[in-house]
Parts: sequence; C-alpha cells; structure tokens
Amino acid sequence: MNFIDIIIKKKNGEELTTKEIQYFIDSVADRTVPDYQISALLMAIAINSMSDRETADITRAMTYSGNVIDLSGIKGIKTDKHSTGGVGDTTTLVLAPLTASLGLPVIKMSGRGLGHTGGTLDKLDSIPGFNVDIPISKAVRQVNQNGIVIMGQTEDLDPADKYLYALRDVTGTVESIPLIASSIMSKKLAAGADAIVLDVKTGSGAFMKNKADAIKLADTMIRAAKAMNRKVTALVTDMNEPLGMHIGNSLEVIEAIEILKGKREGRLKDVSLALGAEMLVLGGIAENTKEGITLMEQNITNGKGLEKLRELIALQGGNPGVTDDYLLFPQPLAKYELIAEEEGYIYSIDCYSIGKASLNTGAGRATKESSIDLSAGIIMHKKVGDIIKRGDVIAEIFAADTDKCLSSADMIKKAVTVSSEKPKEPGLIYEVLR
Amino acid sequence: MNFIDIIIKKKNGEELTTKEIQYFIDSVADRTVPDYQISALLMAIAINSMSDRETADITRAMTYSGNVIDLSGIKGIKTDKHSTGGVGDTTTLVLAPLTASLGLPVIKMSGRGLGHTGGTLDKLDSIPGFNVDIPISKAVRQVNQNGIVIMGQTEDLDPADKYLYALRDVTGTVESIPLIASSIMSKKLAAGADAIVLDVKTGSGAFMKNKADAIKLADTMIRAAKAMNRKVTALVTDMNEPLGMHIGNSLEVIEAIEILKGKREGRLKDVSLALGAEMLVLGGIAENTKEGITLMEQNITNGKGLEKLRELIALQGGNPGVTDDYLLFPQPLAKYELIAEEEGYIYSIDCYSIGKASLNTGAGRATKESSIDLSAGIIMHKKVGDIIKRGDVIAEIFAADTDKCLSSADMIKKAVTVSSEKPKEPGLIYEVLR
Repeated sequence: MNFIDIIIKKKNGEELTTKEIQYFIDSVADRTVPDYQISALLMAIAINSMSDRETADITRAMTYSGNVIDLSGIKGIKTDKHSTGGVGDTTTLVLAPLTASLGLPVIKMSGRGLGHTGGTLDKLDSIPGFNVDIPISKAVRQVNQNGIVIMGQTEDLDPADKYLYALRDVTGTVESIPLIASSIMSKKLAAGADAIVLDVKTGSGAFMKNKADAIKLADTMIRAAKAMNRKVTALVTDMNEPLGMHIGNSLEVIEAIEILKGKREGRLKDVSLALGAEMLVLGGIAENTKEGITLMEQNITNGKGLEKLRELIALQGGNPGVTDDYLLFPQPLAKYELIAEEEGYIYSIDCYSIGKASLNTGAGRATKESSIDLSAGIIMHKKVGDIIKRGDVIAEIFAADTDKCLSSADMIKKAVTVSSEKPKEPGLIYEVLR
Repeated sequence: MNFIDIIIKKKNGEELTTKEIQYFIDSVADRTVPDYQISALLMAIAINSMSDRETADITRAMTYSGNVIDLSGIKGIKTDKHSTGGVGDTTTLVLAPLTASLGLPVIKMSGRGLGHTGGTLDKLDSIPGFNVDIPISKAVRQVNQNGIVIMGQTEDLDPADKYLYALRDVTGTVESIPLIASSIMSKKLAAGADAIVLDVKTGSGAFMKNKADAIKLADTMIRAAKAMNRKVTALVTDMNEPLGMHIGNSLEVIEAIEILKGKREGRLKDVSLALGAEMLVLGGIAENTKEGITLMEQNITNGKGLEKLRELIALQGGNPGVTDDYLLFPQPLAKYELIAEEEGYIYSIDCYSIGKASLNTGAGRATKESSIDLSAGIIMHKKVGDIIKRGDVIAEIFAADTDKCLSSADMIKKAVTVSSEKPKEPGLIYEVLR
C-alpha cells in the first residue's frame, strides 16, 4: 500500500477502504510516515469529510493504536461520560458522586485542561492531599469496594490520537467532524467503558458554535461507537453563557459541593442530573431518565451524594473537611468585584470572552507548560435574563494580584450586554440522541 | 500574519489576499514554515483551487522568490517556449534553429529530464563535445552575434518552486491547475523572456489526460503571465500517440535533423512549425502564423535552418559532422525489431506505455540519480491509422542489452492495438489560446 495513493484518493473525494484507513493509522502510530504526508491527508479529510463507515474505521483503528484498558474486573456496567468542554462545566464532580451513591460503578479517567480552566484533575488538585495517580489495579479494587474512583490516565492510551491531534492543532485541521468524533470516541473506547454518555456543547463558549454542527458531531460519534458495539447517548446542550456560576478550579469544586448539599439549583445542576440520568439508564440502575433524576434528587436531599464525595476524597488521600470549610482550599491573594454601572436585563454573556477572562485570572493554561493558579477564577452573580440595578455585583474575580483582577474584570464587562429589552429564555438541553 | 490562519482560510474555500500569498511564498523561500504546514496549505489549494487573481499573485511571488535573469542585453524580443511534456516531443531542436535562422533571438534555457527520455540538455549531450554549461554573459554575447544559444539554467531560479514541487510530489498535490500553472510560469518568467509560447499536451502520454483540463491549464497560465505584462500564446496539442517517430536522446536529435533537411513530414514537424510560427509572430518577425510557417518552410528548403543548427553545435564545442554522419552519435549495443503478427489498422497506441517502454530501454531516468543511455530508445515505424501486414516492422528498439530490448518490445506490443476497423483521424492541434 502506498501512502501517496491514499492521499490522492481522499483528495479526489473518494471513500477510503478499511485497509487503507488501518494502514494510515498504523503508519502514524509506528512513525513510518512523514508529518507532511499526514497533514496533507488530514487536510483532504477535513475538506472532503468521511462517510460513517470511514469514521467508524478510523475510530476503531485509533482505539487499538495502543493499549486498551480492560475493565472486566469491575462488576456491573461501566459507564463513562465525556463533555466536549465549556465554561463553568463541572458536571463530573456533581454526577459522579450521585450516580456512584446509587450503585453505578464509577471509574472516571480524567485529564488536565488547556484553556480557560484546568480539567477535572486540576480541579481535584485544589483539594488538599487529593491524589489522582492511581494504578489501574488499585482503581479496580476501589471501585469494587467503594463504587468510585477519579483518576488520571495511567496507561499511554490511543497514541495515534495524540500524534494526530498535535499535528491538526498546527495545520488548521482541528475543525472536522469525522476527525473530532474519532479523536473523542477512540480515547473513550480505549478507556474500556461499556457505555458512554456524551455532552456535546454548542454556543459562543463551545468549540461547536453552531447547533447543527453539534448535532452532526453527536450523531457521528454515536454511529462510530455503535459500530464497536458500545451503548451511547448524546445530549446537545447550551454553552451560550457559563453553565455554572463558578469558573475556576477550587471554585468549581465548591459549586459542585453546594449542589450536592442541595443549596443550589440552576443550569449546572440540571445538565449534571440529565447526564447522570442517562448513565443510570445505560447502567441498568434506573428504568428511565425520569426515575434516574428522582433517584439523584433523593440522594441530594438525604446527603448520600455528598457523603460519596467525602468518601472519594478520603479514599484518595484528600481532606474531606473541605466540604464543610471552604477556607481549606487554596485562597486567592487578590479579589475584585465588578459592579453594574447601568440597569436593565442581562441580555447576553459572550461565553468565549468569559473563558478568556478566566484564563487571564490564572485559572487556566495557555500552553501545556503553563502552571495553574488553583484559587483563581470568577464567580458570576448574574446570568442571562436577570435584572440588574446600578451598584449590583455582576461578578467577583479572584487572582494572584490586583492587575489580573482588573484586566479580567474589564474583559467580563465587555462580554456582558445589558439591555432594556428582555432576552429570550436561553435554551439548555437541545437534543437527546440515542 | 499567522500561517495557520491562512491555511484555515483556504480550507474554508476563501480567497487569500495578495499579502497572504506573498507571506506564504516568502515563508517557503526563507524556510520559516514547517513542511507539514506547507503541505496542509497545498492540499487545501489543490482541493479548493485558486482564483485567477490568486494564481497571478502566487506566480508573481514565486517568480521573485530568487534571482530573475535580466536579458535586456539582448537586442530584440526574447521569446521562450515551454512544453508540458510528451513522448517523442523534441520540438525545441526543430524550431530553435529555424526561428533563429529567421532573426528571432533564441536564448533557450533547458533542463534535464525525469521520465521516458532525457530533457533537451540530455539530448544535446548525445552530440560529441556539445557543451551546455554556458555563463549568462557569454550566452548574451552569443545570441547577439549568432542569434542562438541552448543552455542549462546557470542561476538558481525560483527556489520557492523547487521546494514546493518536491513537497507536492510526495503529498499527492501535483494535480492542481493553479499549482501547475504557477510552477511552470514562475520558472519561465524568472528566466527573463518577453514573450512565451506554451505547448500544453493532452492525451494518454501527457500529464493532462483530459482536453478540458489542458485548456483550463493553458488559460490559467496565460492569465497569470498577462498579469505580469508578458505576451503569451498557448497551443493545446495531442499526445495520444508519440509526437515524433523517434523516442530517445540521440534518436530525437536525428529526427530533428531529418526534419531540418526536409526529409521528413508529419506530426512532430507540424507542431514544431505551429509553435515556431507563434514565436515569430510574438517576436515581430512574421505578420501572422501563416507567414511564419511559410518562412520556416523556406529555411528548411534552402537549408538555412540546418545550417543554424550546425552553427549552434560548432559554437558550443560540438561536432557539426553529426548532421551528415549519424554514426558519430553514441551507438547502442543491442537492437531488436518488433514484427507485426497480425494485420489491420493501427487503431491506437497507448502513449503512456510507449513512454514506459522508452524508460525501460535506458533512454530515461527513473530517479534524479539515474544515468541515461544516450543511444537507447525506440523508432516507431507505424502510427495510428497506418495499415500493417504480418511481418511488417512496428518498431525498432535500441538498448544496452538484448534483455532490455525484449522487455521493451513486449511493452510496445501491448501498447499497440490493431483492428480491422479504421480509426478516427487523430487530432493534432486542438486549440490556440492567445
């Protein structure tokens, strides 16, 4: 087989065979093809797309480009969750304790983040003592005994994806539905889950700005996973404003705790429970999502969800006291309140700019090498549709110094549009694809 | 300016600005952009194409990516010719002496070939003593005094094209009309001619198999050159069978001599004179192409064309005796005659396969490092439409050993279709674009 022939075929808009796709991914994983040929093929795919069959083939080839985790030692249906990422999007820390408290085996492998805040692992780092470096054998024992583990990827999964993603990032080929779908799904499939719930975000703060593209991506991922006999459900959810009111690392852990305490309603809770309910259904714990939500609401009210989080923290070396005393989290050196200078409705919040303001506080990484300020971030006091008066606090900003607070406040100010006109009720869950 | 933004723009099918194209070519020439980004952009261009304005811009930027030859020291209108390449395509050796003998200043910079035979320089190498390494100052003097020089490129012209072409060759992006057009025209424009005649080949032995593509390429090259104020004419000519009857290096020189002696009519002479006539018109020597052809026919009859070739050979250190004694050319060690085993019309000749048979004799280079057998090649005795009888010679094959002769003969045999049905008269000059 000749790599150039494969490139030309895709350049001409033809469908690649299963063998050709396997050869492509093998060549990437084995480093037997030069980057300039890979990037030419990636561009041809990005422009001419791939059929569902091709996307399933590339997903399968990438999944098996390295080790695949064997979770058969865990009893029950292992259900994973993936979000395409948004601002104030900490659903894992809400739904993992709740679903685990209902008997769903939760083995959640998470990552560190690049962007406006850290990933789930960075957020957990803000809990003093919490350890995410757990070998897979210990993780399996912990899930069988206590029902929950949240950990970093211990094995070098999906090396083809790592290589392709790094190259796509510098060759203008990130935006491609088959390439995004295969990248996400191959990583999830290599992590060994039986069933997967996807949260595909759409809006100004999401990678997919456009709802139709988000639905197409969700549908493509479902088809790719079904071709490998996994159960998948995808929700397409709104990211036109931050999902939670807290944006940051320790700040998002605190918001999750507040929800588990039953002290906070709203969009973050609604999406977390909707995703959790899908997991409970796929995992055979609930008959339907309505029952799933009822069960989770019960375990908020009776405190079992919060108790499971405290158990998780203790099991992984952290101080469960953080759930009672938020001062145990790292504390910011500077703080600033953004005050409203006009009155009216919050008409819109440019979510992408809020993400950039969060990065500017120090809560996120601009490059892989950047370090994160775990105490930095933003608490939004207003959301779209709220009425504000002059003097109201729009947001609190936390950072290592006042300059960062002021520049972030300025970015937030520009991102928030106030109007005398009442905005349309923002959407939340647009589609459920099964 | 950011290279990735430029890639994404072309990926999305947008038009690049003049400045973006300049930045692209500058980055290639300066080696400040990695190959994987160049190849991604080349693929986006190959699929999404370029407007006439973009093609003119990339042609101009490539032309000036290195030195540009200044031919202002030569009196008269300097007229160059370029062929996209075919089999038995030695028009330069016919038209250069003829047009020079009529007073057109001929400074022809040629190349060495990769493929079924060598290039013009390789062909001239078969004349004992002939020297093509001539400094530009001497070439200018020779043209002013004697009207003709045929030489290798002395300066390192168009480095961006060299780099891009090498990368296109290994990334499946050779076939792209704006990239082909800008590659050809930028090299020609950097070589300093005032006017250019293009011979765009189409058919089984040409790069452009399809006539519509050949016309589109010709039109694109004309627009790019006009944007740089050069006069250009393009002929779209047939390459569905070899143009001349001789295919090889010394063999093609011999066929050109035969035409200049008035001993041979046919397709090679017709195309050479058609191209020469366009050059004479652009160079202000002839009023129109009909007059140009009449003038060239006269200089065949009166021997002035042949005399100019002998003068050229002598000026450049070669032995002009070759025009009288073909045994002065390198002689092949083995020879074979392919004999007809059936009778009927020569219905078709797969020109691409004849080219491969020629390469197989040793007349061409498979890679840049290969050496050429200057005496090797093929003399076709039949062309499409000829009637053959059992026992007729279809072709003579010349090579260094009998094995090569036999395997080449077998390739020719498979390429020639004999039928009782009379074929359509093959076309020759399909279009003239000015």
